[in-house]
Amino acid sequence: MSYGIFGKFTTTAGQQEKLVELLLEAAASLEDEPSCLHYIVSVSDEADTVIVHEIWTSQASHKASLELPATRRLIEQARPLITGMERLLTFDPQGGKGL
Amino acid sequence: MSYGIFGKFTTTAGQQEKLVELLLEAAASLEDEPSCLHYIVSVSDEADTVIVHEIWTSQASHKASLELPATRRLIEQARPLITGMERLLTFDPQGGKGL
Repeated sequence: MSYGIFGKFTTTAGQQEKLVELLLEAAASLEDEPSCLHYIVSVSDEADTVIVHEIWTSQASHKASLELPATRRLIEQARPLITGMERLLTFDPQGGKGL
Repeated sequence: MSYGIFGKFTTTAGQQEKLVELLLEAAASLEDEPSCLHYIVSVSDEADTVIVHEIWTSQASHKASLELPATRRLIEQARPLITGMERLLTFDPQGGKGL
């Protein structure tokens, strides 16, 4: 069906908001990317972390997106804020509301 | 902003597909529920499990939805298939593509 990823970024102290901003920019840069169905940026109860969950038409389309100029630029900008990255889950959406 | 939940159901052996069907019915029953933004049913590499991630306008609207007749009926139908339920994460979506 499609390819979903749930990941968590850990930031340097106090940089959660800045990273949320950058990742929302990344989401905006994907607005016209048809293979990206969802790119949602969230926070949780855990301080200095940012949650991103994405749904792509395929694993290949996700991988290719990492080479897009806008994505590469934002990754470079975000790198100094990030101390850790953890993939919580990959999942295969079967359907539902909002997809 | 809003209220997100990521959860995992464990099913009795071989009942993953049946539970996916029921949960997709639950998603369909929420199509006209404005407070439900996302209700997405997925599978993962782990056998006999079903992943659901939901985004609601608020925690209260999610809680109220559990009392909806269609939701209660589907929960009763699904109960015999489910051996476990685990809330992987609650999250507060800040924005992004697809929301």
